[in-house]
Amino acid sequence: MRFEVSQEFYFDAAHTLEREIEAAGSRRIHGHTYHARATVAGPRDPATGMVVDLGHLRVQLKKVREQLDHHLLDEVPGLGAPTMENLCLFIARKLREADFPVHAVEVWRKAGGDRCRLEMTPEDQLPGL
Amino acid sequence: MRFEVSQEFYFDAAHTLEREIEAAGSRRIHGHTYHARATVAGPRDPATGMVVDLGHLRVQLKKVREQLDHHLLDEVPGLGAPTMENLCLFIARKLREADFPVHAVEVWRKAGGDRCRLEMTPEDQLPGL
Amino acid sequence: MRFEVSQEFYFDAAHTLEREIEAAGSRRIHGHTYHARATVAGPRDPATGMVVDLGHLRVQLKKVREQLDHHLLDEVPGLGAPTMENLCLFIARKLREADFPVHAVEVWRKAGGDRCRLEMTPEDQLPGL
Repeated sequence: MRFEVSQEFYFDAAHTLEREIEAAGSRRIHGHTYHARATVAGPRDPATGMVVDLGHLRVQLKKVREQLDHHLLDEVPGLGAPTMENLCLFIARKLREADFPVHAVEVWRKAGGDRCRLEMTPEDQLPGL
Repeated sequence: MRFEVSQEFYFDAAHTLEREIEAAGSRRIHGHTYHARATVAGPRDPATGMVVDLGHLRVQLKKVREQLDHHLLDEVPGLGAPTMENLCLFIARKLREADFPVHAVEVWRKAGGDRCRLEMTPEDQLPGL
Repeated sequence: MRFEVSQEFYFDAAHTLEREIEAAGSRRIHGHTYHARATVAGPRDPATGMVVDLGHLRVQLKKVREQLDHHLLDEVPGLGAPTMENLCLFIARKLREADFPVHAVEVWRKAGGDRCRLEMTPEDQLPGL
């Protein structure tokens, strides 16, 4: 038996991207509404009926959001190339730095239908960017 | 190769909750629209092209829904503290009692963006509440 | 650490289905808007910050979509009984035939809330239909 609890948020941001295909539009400064979800896995505490109170996760995610929302992602320190994969890594690293035992991070864009999921164990080293 | 088939439903319900943070609002009687999804895993029957006909699952979920929709969750027998984790357990136990081989249950609230997923094997004992 | 990237699309199609329950309506020619998602799993390339550029996946999915959208699914070669399970298999086979290393395919219908997920390893043989 395994529980996962998660919290979603969104941020609006600009970026550029170097790509092999769809190259010209990606190189222009443009923007997206990004949706993200952070997941914690663990046992349910019988006393509270919860894995963790998601209110604590929301406090951390608000801080992460401030570093991404209404920013040019190309210039966000520690993000690297502003891909969905690197956004997942960025959010995961920030939660770990705050001692939050994150199990998965997802980033997606509703309009285009693309999505990225990063799943990790506590032992996984997250690469610096 | 592994198939999972699932059925979503929703219910509107009231509850209160004892919490460390966001405590005052949670203690007042309030309500949410809950969304839930029950998942069955298994092989595909080559004769029907299905794992299981989801119409059968919908019949069971309708019965579970009647025990939650337009109720004060604090008073639902066997639910315990009305958290998303306990709602997942409740729905899973009801499906098992009806001999439905549930593999996962998810409960989420769209407005707030919080979500819980319970995954289980047939051997897992589901705790009573 | 594990990354999954995925692309969603939709198609509108007609079908009939032989079923034990909800039988009369299913036997009539009717239609649905289907949503589908194809997922690729793998490591992130540090040079690009991506698992794979989803633009490549979109090119393949456009070809798959043309074989399903605005068709009577009963008559689509190689689909078999037009269930969500067989639609997952169909999409997975077409992506493999195009040498795309698909890890999972999901098909769902928003109005009814039903969904199917097929997960596979590179070693899994996908049955012909």
